[in-house]
Amino acid sequence: MAKILTSRKENYSQWYNELIIKADLAENSAVRGCMVIKPYGYTIWEKMQSILDDMFKKTGHVNAYFPLFIPKSFFAKEADHVDGFAKECAVVTHYRLRNSEKGGIEVDPEAKLEEELIVRPTSETIIWNTYRNWIQSYRDLPLLINQWANVVRWEMRTRLFLRTAEFLWQEGHTAHATKQEAIEETEKMIKVYSDFATNYLGIPVLIGTKTENERFAGALETYSIEAMMQDGKALQAGTSHFLGQNFAKAFDVKFLNNENKEEYVWATSWGVSTRLMGALVMAHSDDNGLILPPKLAPLQVAIVPIYKTEEQLSAIKQRVNKLVETLRSKNITVKFDDRDYQRPGFKFAEYELKGVPIRLAIGPRDFENETYEVARRDTLEKETVSSAQIVEHIEKLLIDIQDNIYNKALELRNKNTHYIDTYSEFKNILETNPGFIYAHWDGTSETENKIQEETKATIRCIPINSNPEHGKCIVTGKPSKQRVLFAKAY
Amino acid sequence: MAKILTSRKENYSQWYNELIIKADLAENSAVRGCMVIKPYGYTIWEKMQSILDDMFKKTGHVNAYFPLFIPKSFFAKEADHVDGFAKECAVVTHYRLRNSEKGGIEVDPEAKLEEELIVRPTSETIIWNTYRNWIQSYRDLPLLINQWANVVRWEMRTRLFLRTAEFLWQEGHTAHATKQEAIEETEKMIKVYSDFATNYLGIPVLIGTKTENERFAGALETYSIEAMMQDGKALQAGTSHFLGQNFAKAFDVKFLNNENKEEYVWATSWGVSTRLMGALVMAHSDDNGLILPPKLAPLQVAIVPIYKTEEQLSAIKQRVNKLVETLRSKNITVKFDDRDYQRPGFKFAEYELKGVPIRLAIGPRDFENETYEVARRDTLEKETVSSAQIVEHIEKLLIDIQDNIYNKALELRNKNTHYIDTYSEFKNILETNPGFIYAHWDGTSETENKIQEETKATIRCIPINSNPEHGKCIVTGKPSKQRVLFAKAY
Repeated sequence: MAKILTSRKENYSQWYNELIIKADLAENSAVRGCMVIKPYGYTIWEKMQSILDDMFKKTGHVNAYFPLFIPKSFFAKEADHVDGFAKECAVVTHYRLRNSEKGGIEVDPEAKLEEELIVRPTSETIIWNTYRNWIQSYRDLPLLINQWANVVRWEMRTRLFLRTAEFLWQEGHTAHATKQEAIEETEKMIKVYSDFATNYLGIPVLIGTKTENERFAGALETYSIEAMMQDGKALQAGTSHFLGQNFAKAFDVKFLNNENKEEYVWATSWGVSTRLMGALVMAHSDDNGLILPPKLAPLQVAIVPIYKTEEQLSAIKQRVNKLVETLRSKNITVKFDDRDYQRPGFKFAEYELKGVPIRLAIGPRDFENETYEVARRDTLEKETVSSAQIVEHIEKLLIDIQDNIYNKALELRNKNTHYIDTYSEFKNILETNPGFIYAHWDGTSETENKIQEETKATIRCIPINSNPEHGKCIVTGKPSKQRVLFAKAY
Repeated sequence: MAKILTSRKENYSQWYNELIIKADLAENSAVRGCMVIKPYGYTIWEKMQSILDDMFKKTGHVNAYFPLFIPKSFFAKEADHVDGFAKECAVVTHYRLRNSEKGGIEVDPEAKLEEELIVRPTSETIIWNTYRNWIQSYRDLPLLINQWANVVRWEMRTRLFLRTAEFLWQEGHTAHATKQEAIEETEKMIKVYSDFATNYLGIPVLIGTKTENERFAGALETYSIEAMMQDGKALQAGTSHFLGQNFAKAFDVKFLNNENKEEYVWATSWGVSTRLMGALVMAHSDDNGLILPPKLAPLQVAIVPIYKTEEQLSAIKQRVNKLVETLRSKNITVKFDDRDYQRPGFKFAEYELKGVPIRLAIGPRDFENETYEVARRDTLEKETVSSAQIVEHIEKLLIDIQDNIYNKALELRNKNTHYIDTYSEFKNILETNPGFIYAHWDGTSETENKIQEETKATIRCIPINSNPEHGKCIVTGKPSKQRVLFAKAY
């Protein structure tokens, strides 16, 4: 059979781009940097949304919706924030078009906005401007609000799911009466993201805090989850920010505490985006196509009939219909693919490309023996299973595949994680066997910048819950209390 | 107790505005014409979304996501569409800000877009431009795709939920091989909307087609559902458009039919928006606050303890906890409101304002008698129910309230629906007892415009499934085959 994709080994980046397109996940649109998320890709995103939304609600959050546009002046109010965010963005300057004398339509110069509006790159400013009127007393706190929305950041070099001008995300914005409570919220939400990555995406992640260089603009502390892709690069898959009182001060949000004293409110924000789709693809898939964890696969089981005569098809169909019904009653998504204008081989390749976790085939011999041929997508292994056992087998296999995908990713990460103590070894590893590198660092931005300039590796995070270990910075030899995580990153 | 709201009789419009704000549904934002949908309002919208999304999926549709921005030139491609849509809209002209010499930030004049981008007012153009690459043969059809998204129309006079610059909606965009199939889809979806309005919003609606004047820009036929508000005005609550081959021609979307001949694709689009929130409020609520149908209420049952001592509260709590557990196991949302800093009277008024369908109160005497005081929001009636009967009673009451809300709205509509045969009576009714008017019309835009200018009433729709009835136009006396529906409208 003809090769569908460039192999990962040949060109990992091209493999990714081809796979996103050929598996019908997304494509570039007519608008530079903006993607179209196709139904197959969007169904995966919907599953992610639904699971995350449940997790947010179980941790006490509610959803709301804030405006798409933010007045330009809002960005100038929080000094760090404006430096980090307000520059590369979509600016609305006019509110009307008119018929042009040359034919076509043109912007009506009379309809110029007094103050330009920015299409939100993130919503801290408009939300904290709103919270000012919602919060008077400690009884109004905490506010635990999340928003599902589209945001726009005018990226120059874009890539489907990983970095697009418009993307979809959720952004949590919470307000608290105490610093302690806000920090706990920040940590709680990064753990929610970590649970989601582990248990649904099937991706092991490391939790840590960002260095000052990599921190969110306006945050006092940024937590992230970091995942390893199959090429050894890191991908930041979610962040949770402790914002201190920065936005409360910028937007004058105060409350009366239970001692009747006025205080500024404490804030957090946290988000994950359609970038998770890119992580999902790059973490698991292979040269034949997608490998999807069963919990997120739009279709979990595909059944392909193999037949010569209409009678054979009809007999197969009758048996399969019962199986389909039973599986659906167990909330397993299943499709019987009786398209007569495609050959079984074509269908097999299609389900492989699209990452359907389990494929059944049933031909005349299977029919006679009351069996199915069962192929699992993650390992490409095939076996023959009796009709009597098939439902139980599928249920078990879906769990096995979910686990196996995670374990494979964990194995890959373990294999490509290095503890390095000299700068020369550090550089060498990055060239020969890139991955996660735990090394000592002196805690300065200068050293961090130097390493980045010379190796393109950045500090992904300062891992939490790691054992303190005294050592010396690999560059300057100055003392360090803990290894930090370096990697090249997406 | 102090009056919370202006009464409907006093000033219906002000009553609505106050209610939206005071019931915590939404508020105006710092951005002109854009609203903030607050958590209580957003929860209702989420319920609407979830029910509608299920209905769409059960009728074979899938979700996808298309870009927020549309190149200006796309609007010029479909002649009718550009006239109807592209004028009042948010125009993105630049993609970067820079630090200003005067301090603050300003638009970077170097970062001007070659072609301006329009924030989507509706997505037919960008979607049909995309479909061109998705459709080659009849086997690629039908495409049954829906999108949940935000859209922007630069309205000059805005009103929370009813008419805002940015609003949330869903837009279905389907592609078909035959005209017949596209018309069937258009009709199927307006019926889905009608079912949703009837069975969930509790609002009776009329289905009809729009006159040419009121048709969607680019459509050959527009179906709408029309609902009556309590002031007798009509509100268009959903539309479904048969677009013919207009967009396929504008964006060159052809397919090979099963006879291997090239044809243009047939299209539909259909949508409902956060405007439904406005309809919900205006159709049912009263001078005390919201009245929400139980199927959409964020909270269905509120339980208020009445007590003097901590011992009493503790005993009540113990009994109520079991009830709460039982109700939750039946998927009934319930809250035990033991806030100690608010009096029961305050709580009663709050739940009335927020439209919680059932409120229970339990005081020391109820505790002793093993009863609850049950108040239903729709009729404000109270009764005493034994603990043994309470669960069953609540289950039944939720159904009763849902039905009663619908029936009340239907009664209101029937009472305010008139069959009118002379223009003088027509004008008289609009002044004295506005509502829906069925009258004969000669089928011309001239007459329609004249009536609108002189009375502000418009033709809401040409009802489907109504008996043909020959008559004479109330204005010109020319022959007419069917009465059409006139009303003043939101």
